[in-house]
Amino acid sequence: MSADLDQLVLSLAQRARAAALVLATVPRSAKDAALRQLADLIESSQAELLAANERDLAGPDAAVLSAAARDRLRLNESRIKHLAESVREVAALPDPVGDLLEETRRPNGLLIRKVRVPIGVIAIIFESRPNVTVDCAILCLKSGNASILRGGKESFHTNTALAVLITRALVAAGLPADAVQLVPTTDRSALTSLLKLDTYIHCVIPRGGEGLIRFVAQNSTIPVIKHYKGVCFVYVDRAADFAMAEAITLNAKVQRPSACNAAEQLLVHRDVAAQFLPAIARALHANKVQLRTDAAAAAILAPVGIPTQPATAEDYSTEFLDYVIAVRVVDSIDAAIATINRDSSNHSDAIVTADEAAARRFLAEIDSATVYWNASTRFTDGFEFGYGAEIGISTDRLHARGPMGLRELCSYKFIIEGTGQVRG
Amino acid sequence: MSADLDQLVLSLAQRARAAALVLATVPRSAKDAALRQLADLIESSQAELLAANERDLAGPDAAVLSAAARDRLRLNESRIKHLAESVREVAALPDPVGDLLEETRRPNGLLIRKVRVPIGVIAIIFESRPNVTVDCAILCLKSGNASILRGGKESFHTNTALAVLITRALVAAGLPADAVQLVPTTDRSALTSLLKLDTYIHCVIPRGGEGLIRFVAQNSTIPVIKHYKGVCFVYVDRAADFAMAEAITLNAKVQRPSACNAAEQLLVHRDVAAQFLPAIARALHANKVQLRTDAAAAAILAPVGIPTQPATAEDYSTEFLDYVIAVRVVDSIDAAIATINRDSSNHSDAIVTADEAAARRFLAEIDSATVYWNASTRFTDGFEFGYGAEIGISTDRLHARGPMGLRELCSYKFIIEGTGQVRG
Repeated sequence: MSADLDQLVLSLAQRARAAALVLATVPRSAKDAALRQLADLIESSQAELLAANERDLAGPDAAVLSAAARDRLRLNESRIKHLAESVREVAALPDPVGDLLEETRRPNGLLIRKVRVPIGVIAIIFESRPNVTVDCAILCLKSGNASILRGGKESFHTNTALAVLITRALVAAGLPADAVQLVPTTDRSALTSLLKLDTYIHCVIPRGGEGLIRFVAQNSTIPVIKHYKGVCFVYVDRAADFAMAEAITLNAKVQRPSACNAAEQLLVHRDVAAQFLPAIARALHANKVQLRTDAAAAAILAPVGIPTQPATAEDYSTEFLDYVIAVRVVDSIDAAIATINRDSSNHSDAIVTADEAAARRFLAEIDSATVYWNASTRFTDGFEFGYGAEIGISTDRLHARGPMGLRELCSYKFIIEGTGQVRG
Repeated sequence: MSADLDQLVLSLAQRARAAALVLATVPRSAKDAALRQLADLIESSQAELLAANERDLAGPDAAVLSAAARDRLRLNESRIKHLAESVREVAALPDPVGDLLEETRRPNGLLIRKVRVPIGVIAIIFESRPNVTVDCAILCLKSGNASILRGGKESFHTNTALAVLITRALVAAGLPADAVQLVPTTDRSALTSLLKLDTYIHCVIPRGGEGLIRFVAQNSTIPVIKHYKGVCFVYVDRAADFAMAEAITLNAKVQRPSACNAAEQLLVHRDVAAQFLPAIARALHANKVQLRTDAAAAAILAPVGIPTQPATAEDYSTEFLDYVIAVRVVDSIDAAIATINRDSSNHSDAIVTADEAAARRFLAEIDSATVYWNASTRFTDGFEFGYGAEIGISTDRLHARGPMGLRELCSYKFIIEGTGQVRG
């Protein structure tokens, strides 16, 4: 059985590699035609998609999900409409493939051009939400990559129904059917086997919880691009405008607490803590945010009657993804920078200050993918950056760091033209 | 003992991370001062370096090396002089850190700047040659990265003596001593333990044979940039200029057969095989190159009296690194492209032709890091590309592909300036 699975996964990867070689040089028009076809098919196949989704929702794996996770799994008319629209939006984006990145003429006459090309074969390992299946498939397709998709077992029927539509769209546009493949089993050993096929698969992107990402990183011999957690900080400097600091802190915390770019940690300069903390604490409290404070913050907040909890050591580097924030008072910008570089996850961190010198130090010295001066951490996002699409937010430092759009799904190659040059 | 080793390696990684945070923002002048100081120290410490090298050469690990490997391990006056010069050359290169890569003003007024920054902490795992120790240390330092170096046991004393000089140079320039650290043991379990420290180390680069690279790739939870083998092809098209094709094939094969960018495979179009093969075979044979041929090539070469061996199936995807070349006749450019995309290692492949349409197809469709039209594959090299330095040639498609210079040792971060923007 396991040998059969190995064989199945190997064949899938080999076919993906063959498809990738074709896909790498097809014109934009063919890729966009497949995408527009897919959008139409999604709309016209609403009944089939809803039926498949009902099967998932009625299955044993969905039964154990939380209400929120069940809701994410559910398709409905408006979500299907939205899915089709998102496919059309990707079709309208520029094709990243073929961009000339650099051009050099060497003294020996060689012309060296560095050109953007697809990575090749990308495996995406994800959980539950059906829109992720379509998202990943279309972003890989648009960037000229073949993809192997492996979704969660709770959404198996929905994913399979969507994969059928994707294959139909590819074939209708004259593209290889193997350019997008769904792993036709949710057996864990198929995943483990897939993660060793570094001859055919060039990149793995896990999209899901920390457990899934760790499993993939530990079991893969293929390079992995990780989207780990965001333990994001807002630092309110002594030269901060208080109204701005309050608006930014509140937005970063409560606008969408479940996002990786939401703030989890608040640092306040000691010189302004007594003035600033009561106001922001009231505002957070009014938004149902629980404050977990150090002794200095508690000493300021207790007398003014704002309920707080003492923070544990662990709270200071926790991604709550909830209506919770840890609050500390720091003595200086040096202490703020050292604290953030130690406790943050190097995702997105912000300073609020009117002092440009302090801001410049923060922006230079904070070792995070995205650093903000006087803006909310919530802007770390492919759409907000103007990429028009996003496959995730990389917490790695190699290849892509921060929001990943279509260009970040590409590699490059060197095309060199000579007139008979040999090396001396 | 193993717990002690784990602790030793952990402490080393933590200190490297602290040093990296300092190094990321030091001015170019400090890095260059350390490099120039190191060059002077290498020259003035010749006696100590030669004595340490003698200890390695007299040791049990060197005793089992081949004559060629012993020669690579050996330092002498001219090699030390050359080492010092190479350090001065890196000091003279531009600093890649801080380059503005992109700048966008978003409709909401946010200014987003994408800026080149060091990766952070880089571990380099390498074998034998002492110059690699210095090479890796100085390229990491110049690009603002802290480095952890782990060399082979046969060069342990030489590496230790060099590391002492590097530390003295760092301290003399006011840089953290921990910015370059040598793992002070050659115990394999220290390496295994190091490869799990993904909290502190951001990138691993193995430099050595395929066995070492596989070991690192399989045991590391830290992203690895691999420099695998080069099974490089020269394809002589039917429209090739024969004199040029002969010069390129000969250069690619014999100018330095042990290099990863040397040609291992020759494909010749059927229409010109009878004309071209005897001449190139004679030239290769005169250069002591053994030809391993398919039946079609053998049928042309046997009658003209050039000795060949029948190739095995394995020969067609082998990196010989020696005076050996496999030779096949192909029916068309389509066959050449399909063969190369199947059998090459996607490193460097060349077409020789006067037919521009054939060349354009080859350059577009060959899925290799570097593709050549009418030039030798031997040019895949950081110095030949004008990078001024090279840490290796990546066979990966993520982050860096092909020659890696100082810029490829960098990541980027986003620096975002606002005026109080929050997300709606």
